[in-house]
Amino acid sequence: MFWILFCIFLAACLGAGVTGGLFAPGPWYRRLNKPWFTPPDWVFPVTWMILYVCMATAGVRLAMAPDNGYAMGFWALQIAFNGLWTPVFFGLKNVRLGMVVVSLLWLSVLGGILAMWSVDLMSALLFVPYLIWVTIAAALNAEVWRLNPEVARNPPDISV
Amino acid sequence: MFWILFCIFLAACLGAGVTGGLFAPGPWYRRLNKPWFTPPDWVFPVTWMILYVCMATAGVRLAMAPDNGYAMGFWALQIAFNGLWTPVFFGLKNVRLGMVVVSLLWLSVLGGILAMWSVDLMSALLFVPYLIWVTIAAALNAEVWRLNPEVARNPPDISV
Repeated sequence: MFWILFCIFLAACLGAGVTGGLFAPGPWYRRLNKPWFTPPDWVFPVTWMILYVCMATAGVRLAMAPDNGYAMGFWALQIAFNGLWTPVFFGLKNVRLGMVVVSLLWLSVLGGILAMWSVDLMSALLFVPYLIWVTIAAALNAEVWRLNPEVARNPPDISV
Repeated sequence: MFWILFCIFLAACLGAGVTGGLFAPGPWYRRLNKPWFTPPDWVFPVTWMILYVCMATAGVRLAMAPDNGYAMGFWALQIAFNGLWTPVFFGLKNVRLGMVVVSLLWLSVLGGILAMWSVDLMSALLFVPYLIWVTIAAALNAEVWRLNPEVARNPPDISV
């Protein structure tokens, strides 16, 4: 049961994560002013793959635990927001709306950790690197907004 | 507990559903040849809101039930694919990849119903209208592909 469930949760992660490949950083992103702590592009997919394995492991452990209601609710909530950020930021190129989404994602990951704590401590710990990474992502989004006020005010028109 | 959990699952639905407003049907979609059974645009948000309430209700019932592992796994899986289809179809304007996503969504909803059946029959029944609607969406996607072979082969370049 563990491995089948693991594959289901990992597939959910990949369903969200595939947006990173589909809405890849393009010319628009390269032209932006970026903060000094911006990681090189290759760091993102590597980090996310590690985080997805942690998240799926937490998911299956929680799914098999009793009294997992809130933990499972937050797991579903965070994966919905996780898959939303990339299409908003890199697809719509909307820096301000990206900030809203990454803030909601941050809250849902924190809520998840708090809900997991009493159900399965290991799962809560597996979500801590995720919270740290989303904190960095949120800081990046905020700094891109601050350093590119014109771009943030006027997202390009992508309708064709 | 029911209503807090309900709000968490509904928020997850809205996190996926907001893509319908962000990547709205534009000039590209209006130019497509569409099948005879295409519903008018307003039907989509109305139907989705009803389905989201059904999905959130199923989510909270399952979250409070024992032995909910697979059901919760599939709930998370379907919401990840649910939020992916609109950015792929209306954002990337990729009809073929949209077909892949809607097929995976269909399978995850079916898997969810099967997993829910033995945990909470009402939840499984609440997912049946969802499966029917995703079947219609998949048929629409397939017909758009068939009726617009050139568009399906050559998604427009949306990088700016």
